Amino acid sequence: MTDFLARARELDAADALAPFRERFVIPDESLVYLDGNSLGRLPVSTRERLHRAIDEWGGDLIRGWDRWITLSREVGDVLATGVLEAAPGEVVLSDSTSVNLYKLAAAACAARPGRRVIVTDDDNFPSDRYIFQGLAEELRVVKTDIDLGVSVESVREALDEDVALVSLSHVAYRSGAVADMAAITAAAHQVGALTLWDLSHSAGAVRVPLRSAGVDLAVGCTYKHLNAGPGAPAFLCVRADLQRELRQPIWGWFGQRDQFDMGAAYEPVDSIDRFQVGTPPVLGAYAALEGARLTAEAGIGAIAEKGTALGAFAIEASDAWLAPHGFALASPRAGIRRGGHVTLHHPRAWQFSQALRAAGVVPDFRTPDRLRLGFGALYTRFVDVYAGLARLREIAASGSHLGFPERRARVT
Amino acid sequence: MTDFLARARELDAADALAPFRERFVIPDESLVYLDGNSLGRLPVSTRERLHRAIDEWGGDLIRGWDRWITLSREVGDVLATGVLEAAPGEVVLSDSTSVNLYKLAAAACAARPGRRVIVTDDDNFPSDRYIFQGLAEELRVVKTDIDLGVSVESVREALDEDVALVSLSHVAYRSGAVADMAAITAAAHQVGALTLWDLSHSAGAVRVPLRSAGVDLAVGCTYKHLNAGPGAPAFLCVRADLQRELRQPIWGWFGQRDQFDMGAAYEPVDSIDRFQVGTPPVLGAYAALEGARLTAEAGIGAIAEKGTALGAFAIEASDAWLAPHGFALASPRAGIRRGGHVTLHHPRAWQFSQALRAAGVVPDFRTPDRLRLGFGALYTRFVDVYAGLARLREIAASGSHLGFPERRARVT
Repeated sequence: MTDFLARARELDAADALAPFRERFVIPDESLVYLDGNSLGRLPVSTRERLHRAIDEWGGDLIRGWDRWITLSREVGDVLATGVLEAAPGEVVLSDSTSVNLYKLAAAACAARPGRRVIVTDDDNFPSDRYIFQGLAEELRVVKTDIDLGVSVESVREALDEDVALVSLSHVAYRSGAVADMAAITAAAHQVGALTLWDLSHSAGAVRVPLRSAGVDLAVGCTYKHLNAGPGAPAFLCVRADLQRELRQPIWGWFGQRDQFDMGAAYEPVDSIDRFQVGTPPVLGAYAALEGARLTAEAGIGAIAEKGTALGAFAIEASDAWLAPHGFALASPRAGIRRGGHVTLHHPRAWQFSQALRAAGVVPDFRTPDRLRLGFGALYTRFVDVYAGLARLREIAASGSHLGFPERRARVT
Repeated sequence: MTDFLARARELDAADALAPFRERFVIPDESLVYLDGNSLGRLPVSTRERLHRAIDEWGGDLIRGWDRWITLSREVGDVLATGVLEAAPGEVVLSDSTSVNLYKLAAAACAARPGRRVIVTDDDNFPSDRYIFQGLAEELRVVKTDIDLGVSVESVREALDEDVALVSLSHVAYRSGAVADMAAITAAAHQVGALTLWDLSHSAGAVRVPLRSAGVDLAVGCTYKHLNAGPGAPAFLCVRADLQRELRQPIWGWFGQRDQFDMGAAYEPVDSIDRFQVGTPPVLGAYAALEGARLTAEAGIGAIAEKGTALGAFAIEASDAWLAPHGFALASPRAGIRRGGHVTLHHPRAWQFSQALRAAGVVPDFRTPDRLRLGFGALYTRFVDVYAGLARLREIAASGSHLGFPERRARVT
């Protein structure tokens, strides 16, 4: 029988990214945090940068904007070159992921007049689906395998020349399945549709080959694997050659050419900035800058590799320890098909998630019956995964989870 | 001849709000800051609260959301009851001012089917006008007096039963003129139109009688007179009886009933929350909470009164000292018609603003030829206004502003 603890220690000892854990504020070493894909940890440099930014506000006051005004673009360039495999000038920080989805999906539909359909999948993140429901004349929803993700074939079947836009998540929020970005983008292009990828669960966790996959548009959030803090601003990407052609519907002054001339008519600037709207949040932008830099410094290749290894280790331990207690893997088994988290299915997942929290392990629960274990490759150790799963096994063996309330049904 | 310095000292000595200056971080007492209407100062409690919030993120991680999830509504309620004369449940923090304008203007137009027109004015803030250009089938633009603001009569002339929405700024960004909210709202209602007020320059500076004026919709920013920091989140207000009737176009998961059930179809919740979209920025929300509380504690009546007095003092000194150098008042003279700033016209306003900065005074410049002096009633002293205008007089008398470059013309 495998000695998982010894294995975990060996893997940690060999981990080239291990020193990055010291770059994070970890006030409670006894806490096993397995939800970095919901909210990443606080980097030490971000804590310092935020303190400094608060004092910049206090001291520089309005003069701070001489420097802050370009922050959204600076972060965009770090993301483009260090995280997303795009080009400088193709990414900018802006708004929330949902608002960015709205702007880019509307822009894409307007650029394909006469086409009435947006294609997405039925396990895409709810906000994405809601945004498209609000926008689309017709929403064509592809059936997904909830554990294995969306297939190229099923997307291809939904495509015809009525389709203006195909929009999917690169890494599925529930299962962690990675969609085939290149093949789906190519299929969409074959019928003349544009593609809009939601990178919320992939940016900072896996390689995101925007350029080589020929992706048109993308959005994503910075508070998960990019460790920029709760509600930090989102980003959006528009391929350089599309920027002039596309117009988003929310015409704000941060998208205006010569913004401070305050001209009478809206004339969007010829750059990624035309997809900005209002005054950007400076504290959030600094946090995103630090988070993006840290990811770029570690290298997305190394991060993705470690994420895959952490997941493989979790799956192996789960097979050995948890399957006998009724847990089933609800993520792709193959590392290459999996993002930065692993999901387990169990009818009592909600009670297990509460029991884990009480035992000093923070996992995530996803409706209706999934336990999601997220790994931040920059700070999660193999021994953390070991500890989390070992406690889950103890809980399952003792039945202590049954002492926690079942999930309340929807009350309205 | 008036001894303005003695007067300023007397006014400061009698100022009931004077102790509030100690509630702000003021690292450089020699700086004369007259741009609080662009970016307010940093409150001491906000600095502390932000440090604490950063550590909450670091320590509580995802569990922090148990508390953060209601922050946008908490701030909304403080704004509603302590700042805006609305009711709890009618205000929520969300997005940027521009995005909120878009959401509410679109919702208003959808609620008035068959009506094609949005009415605004030609001196409204550029982002407002751009947003409406992007939305309106027809934008009817009322001529404003650039120094005295928009008149009820001119708005009334633009009204007919084609008008879906009337949207103006409560306090004009350039002149500081206060629009007659009650009379304009009543006139709009007479033709069956809705009203949407931009409170960016009035929230925290003057009384905003949303309820007694019967206002339907409003938006505003928190980084000016509410002192919530650069790019802090904006707020929006929807009168309680209109909330169910209106639907905004950006269908995000924070507007969804039973958000974490992640249901297939978007069903907006029956409250102000239906106007939220994506994950709110926690740091910005905490800063807005502290800023709103500080304003509510001081009392908007007292703040408005002091703002008016600071403006009157500035106008008196300007008449005496600056008019001989070609400066002219570009704001309403009557205190009741003026918000928290006073604007002066001079053909060389740009050069004067640069010369003032070099002399340790921070004013604001607004295109094409206006010097804007903003007062934060909670921290601006009469001696600050004195010092700012005295230095401006010295600069004008010596001609030293002529050594600063003229404003570059638009280069594209």
